[in-house]
Amino acid sequence: MSKLMECVPNFSEGRRPEIVAAIVSAMQAVPEARVLDFSSDADHNRSVVTLAGEPDALVEAAFRGAEAASRLIDLTQHKGNHPRMGATDVIPFVPVQGCTMEDAVDAARRLGERLGSELSIPVYLYEAAATRPERKNLADVRRGEFEGLREEIAKPHRQPDFGPPRLHPTAGATAVGARPFLVAFNVNLGTKDVSVAKRIAKAVRGSSGGFVNCKALGLYLEAEGVSQVSMNMTDFTHTSLHHVFEFVRREAEHCAVPVVGSEIVGLVPEAALLAAARYYLRLWTFDETQLLERRLTDGR
Amino acid sequence: MSKLMECVPNFSEGRRPEIVAAIVSAMQAVPEARVLDFSSDADHNRSVVTLAGEPDALVEAAFRGAEAASRLIDLTQHKGNHPRMGATDVIPFVPVQGCTMEDAVDAARRLGERLGSELSIPVYLYEAAATRPERKNLADVRRGEFEGLREEIAKPHRQPDFGPPRLHPTAGATAVGARPFLVAFNVNLGTKDVSVAKRIAKAVRGSSGGFVNCKALGLYLEAEGVSQVSMNMTDFTHTSLHHVFEFVRREAEHCAVPVVGSEIVGLVPEAALLAAARYYLRLWTFDETQLLERRLTDGR
Repeated sequence: MSKLMECVPNFSEGRRPEIVAAIVSAMQAVPEARVLDFSSDADHNRSVVTLAGEPDALVEAAFRGAEAASRLIDLTQHKGNHPRMGATDVIPFVPVQGCTMEDAVDAARRLGERLGSELSIPVYLYEAAATRPERKNLADVRRGEFEGLREEIAKPHRQPDFGPPRLHPTAGATAVGARPFLVAFNVNLGTKDVSVAKRIAKAVRGSSGGFVNCKALGLYLEAEGVSQVSMNMTDFTHTSLHHVFEFVRREAEHCAVPVVGSEIVGLVPEAALLAAARYYLRLWTFDETQLLERRLTDGR
Repeated sequence: MSKLMECVPNFSEGRRPEIVAAIVSAMQAVPEARVLDFSSDADHNRSVVTLAGEPDALVEAAFRGAEAASRLIDLTQHKGNHPRMGATDVIPFVPVQGCTMEDAVDAARRLGERLGSELSIPVYLYEAAATRPERKNLADVRRGEFEGLREEIAKPHRQPDFGPPRLHPTAGATAVGARPFLVAFNVNLGTKDVSVAKRIAKAVRGSSGGFVNCKALGLYLEAEGVSQVSMNMTDFTHTSLHHVFEFVRREAEHCAVPVVGSEIVGLVPEAALLAAARYYLRLWTFDETQLLERRLTDGR
């Protein structure tokens, strides 16, 4: 099986579609890297592109996208709600099939090296690719943003992992990393009292004592008339959707509130759902080689 | 997406491996039809071969296998525990991906026509391919077996769908059909009292008032020291694994017996497990286009 990865570059341009189109086209010139989708947010003044393919193709496509962005975006003129430090702001690699986090880290390093040496853009490796524990968290890496980093970058603790120890004059700096696939998983509660959703969100998320790899907010959905525990599962292979769901369900029951349904926003790797089926049906000896489709498509 | 089907011919030879090998080789001469596996049972004196591929390739491969079997197996000399009426006894087609039951019925008809006209083997269409309600059930089609059918076949109600109204002298007759994928699903109970498993099996199976598309037996597994509700789910798209599992689990609870685990024997289409995940996680709005792998492999 070939190595299949995702790469999700974020560019600091979300208002001029012709600039976004030019950057996307530059990446589409690498046919082995498929552009799955891209979306722009005018308020954030930022665009997110999802690429899929083998690591080499993704490294090449991301490099070309960053090269185009360094010519087309001038960060000294950029304003937007979202924190940013570069024309190409962050580039995470995500292992999907037939590859490991180490492969994603390797892709991040290779891309970082090229951005630094060929485009003179300083690069910080983050999350699984981080070279120092204090660089794991993207928010820490980006502290001060483009404007603040201009001074700070010369200091030893802000030295980039690749490239020169000074910002690119218009393209700033780029964070390149490796992380697991993120699943957006929401559980809807049959109550208009949003305080229940907020209380459960606080109990379930890691930052306030709940599950690691789980971020959560309590929201009220006006249109549906339900409250929602809105979660980002940042590593479903270690913190499973079904354990978190069962926790939320029991907490809701404890508050005498029904769970009326759940939803996944966007995409989910099938492994997350197969793990849930295995858990609930108690298929303790099941393994994925028993999947008919796997058997039919494996090279044998 | 191309049409992907399974075809599972059963041959009346399970003791002479060289005969089985010759039949399998005849089918492997059609490279587009992949032989996923084959197994022989000496007691039954019968072999089962699983082929996968597009319908045309499967029809051609099954035809070649039946042709070889008609030369290599003499049913007048055949003895075994399993009921049979032909050298090639039954050939079901099973829709797997990108195709419907109608496509499987179409493949069954095309193969039946060829077996009748080119090999002079009388063919009965069964299950979804049946041309008369009383031929849906394979056991009814095969009544009397090879020896009994020799006389009966001339009678109007035993007239074959294709081929001559008399048995092939050595190869007998063949049943060709279309059916859904069969899932072997067992639930283990933490008790040595097999009567609980037998009682639950009786309650869950369609033949004694339970779920349609569910066959079940209660067994005691000496080696594991547990009892088992052993089920064949003959159409999981209409009778789901999770509904049947929940029924068995509640019945066991009613008898104060724990469910210690479940197992799937052999292969299962991923749709059966995704349906379970959707049910238990209450992902009512989920659809399969949200699967990352689907998105990555779809032609776009």
